[in-house]
Amino acid sequence: MNQKIKVLVVGYGHVGKQVVTTVHTAPDMELVGVVRRSKNDPQSQVLTAHGIAVYGEDEALPKADVAILAVPTRSVPDYAKRYLAQGICTVDSFDIHTQIATLRHDLMAIAQEHQAVSIISAGWDPGSDSIVRTLMQAMAPEGITYTDFGPGMSMGHSVAARAIAGVRDALSMTLPVGYGQHRRQVYVELEAGANEEQVRQAILADDYFAHDETIVTFVPSVAALEDVGHGVHMMRKGVSGVTHNQRLTFEMQINNPALTAQMMVASARATQRLTPGAYTLPEVPVIDLLVGDRADWIAHLV
Amino acid sequence: MNQKIKVLVVGYGHVGKQVVTTVHTAPDMELVGVVRRSKNDPQSQVLTAHGIAVYGEDEALPKADVAILAVPTRSVPDYAKRYLAQGICTVDSFDIHTQIATLRHDLMAIAQEHQAVSIISAGWDPGSDSIVRTLMQAMAPEGITYTDFGPGMSMGHSVAARAIAGVRDALSMTLPVGYGQHRRQVYVELEAGANEEQVRQAILADDYFAHDETIVTFVPSVAALEDVGHGVHMMRKGVSGVTHNQRLTFEMQINNPALTAQMMVASARATQRLTPGAYTLPEVPVIDLLVGDRADWIAHLV
Repeated sequence: MNQKIKVLVVGYGHVGKQVVTTVHTAPDMELVGVVRRSKNDPQSQVLTAHGIAVYGEDEALPKADVAILAVPTRSVPDYAKRYLAQGICTVDSFDIHTQIATLRHDLMAIAQEHQAVSIISAGWDPGSDSIVRTLMQAMAPEGITYTDFGPGMSMGHSVAARAIAGVRDALSMTLPVGYGQHRRQVYVELEAGANEEQVRQAILADDYFAHDETIVTFVPSVAALEDVGHGVHMMRKGVSGVTHNQRLTFEMQINNPALTAQMMVASARATQRLTPGAYTLPEVPVIDLLVGDRADWIAHLV
Repeated sequence: MNQKIKVLVVGYGHVGKQVVTTVHTAPDMELVGVVRRSKNDPQSQVLTAHGIAVYGEDEALPKADVAILAVPTRSVPDYAKRYLAQGICTVDSFDIHTQIATLRHDLMAIAQEHQAVSIISAGWDPGSDSIVRTLMQAMAPEGITYTDFGPGMSMGHSVAARAIAGVRDALSMTLPVGYGQHRRQVYVELEAGANEEQVRQAILADDYFAHDETIVTFVPSVAALEDVGHGVHMMRKGVSGVTHNQRLTFEMQINNPALTAQMMVASARATQRLTPGAYTLPEVPVIDLLVGDRADWIAHLV
């Protein structure tokens, strides 16, 4: 094998931790460090004790081929621009679907100017699901694709519920009710003295919940319910050529941060194989996500 | 839209017919003709009556950007080399899995020399299934993928059964029995005077059938059983990073020649977007299979 790909992991939350362990499973990669805002907290000490270098955000960084940005979605554009401007490739899991095209456009020029590659929105949805949706569109150009999520925790909805007055902790489950419709089940742990009915009404009125059927349940401990399993069921019924009723289905039951991290690590590999620019996953040859030579995979995968 | 892609269809069997109608549904393509060995038979007359030009194999051809080779698998290498040598891109649905890597290698040099693109094995398996298998491998690098086919007719097995002495006509169904194992159910119409038991034993001893459970059934008319529906169930259980038990499933129920034709036509489009060389489908960005601009698709598919 050639020289290993030097990987920097930026951020060390749920996804960042999984990215670090996943990079260690990749035979063609070398972890050169983790970048954190708080480089002296206990978690950083554990990393250092395991021989993993931790860097503060303003420190000089080691030589890296690619930075995997395991940071909050809203911070992705700033981080990506900063690393690309240093000629370091980036991978993120930016997940605001309506802003992906804009992010790609903004990063394209910077990436090309600095001879780097950025793969954006490289988790599972957007991410691997986007590849499947695009393939289904190609297989049956006319028709409808339904994407059903869950059961699984929605981070965005959980954060929205936690922001409501009287809520100590909250967890919002996304429950598929079929053909693209979802029910929200919000588990709430109240602050002492908070009023159940007021909290329930505030959640139902919130823009995050106003458009779906929503059930609010009060529980003594939200922490006791946490489970990062998730799922997807995607179905397209459409037309190939002039032939109707072609039925295509993709389904998965997965550990959410583990799959997000795996897709980001695979995409980090692909950054080393593309010409400079910004890409979403359907623009990347799927085979470039795999370790090693194309010809070897073709012989037993195609 | 820019100038339309000029498409030549080579061959006019089950798949070739579907390719012709599918090219007509593609807004960015123009059918410039159909190439046939027998250009004066009734089918050619029907094509001509519909305003579709028919060319014999040795005639001068119209200007074409891409030739879709709807010819028997064993003829694909010769046809592909002939068209590529004229600088015409090619698409085929070559389906002998063990020889795909060799075909790609052989066509690579010719395609590059003549500044053309060849996309090989671009049906559904190999083809769209290969993209899904590759993606599943990337999502869970350790683990096992099971591909179950059917229920549906196997062309290769049907042809093998028809070649046996005493068989007037035969149809071999591939029936999934789960986790990559298949049963063959062979429907046989006998020649007058043929012996059932001798034919049954000859089928069971044939190398095509010797490795799977095979049931032979005698029927008065094989033609009455024909149906080109087919299906696939692909399942991978594997590991993302260090997290086991990730479960990924792809399933479809489809009209076989219609999906083969649609994938070939989509691949013909992609030939116009790649650098010269020979590719299998997992090497092609999935988005390049779609009509129109990447940015438009990214805004609502990713």
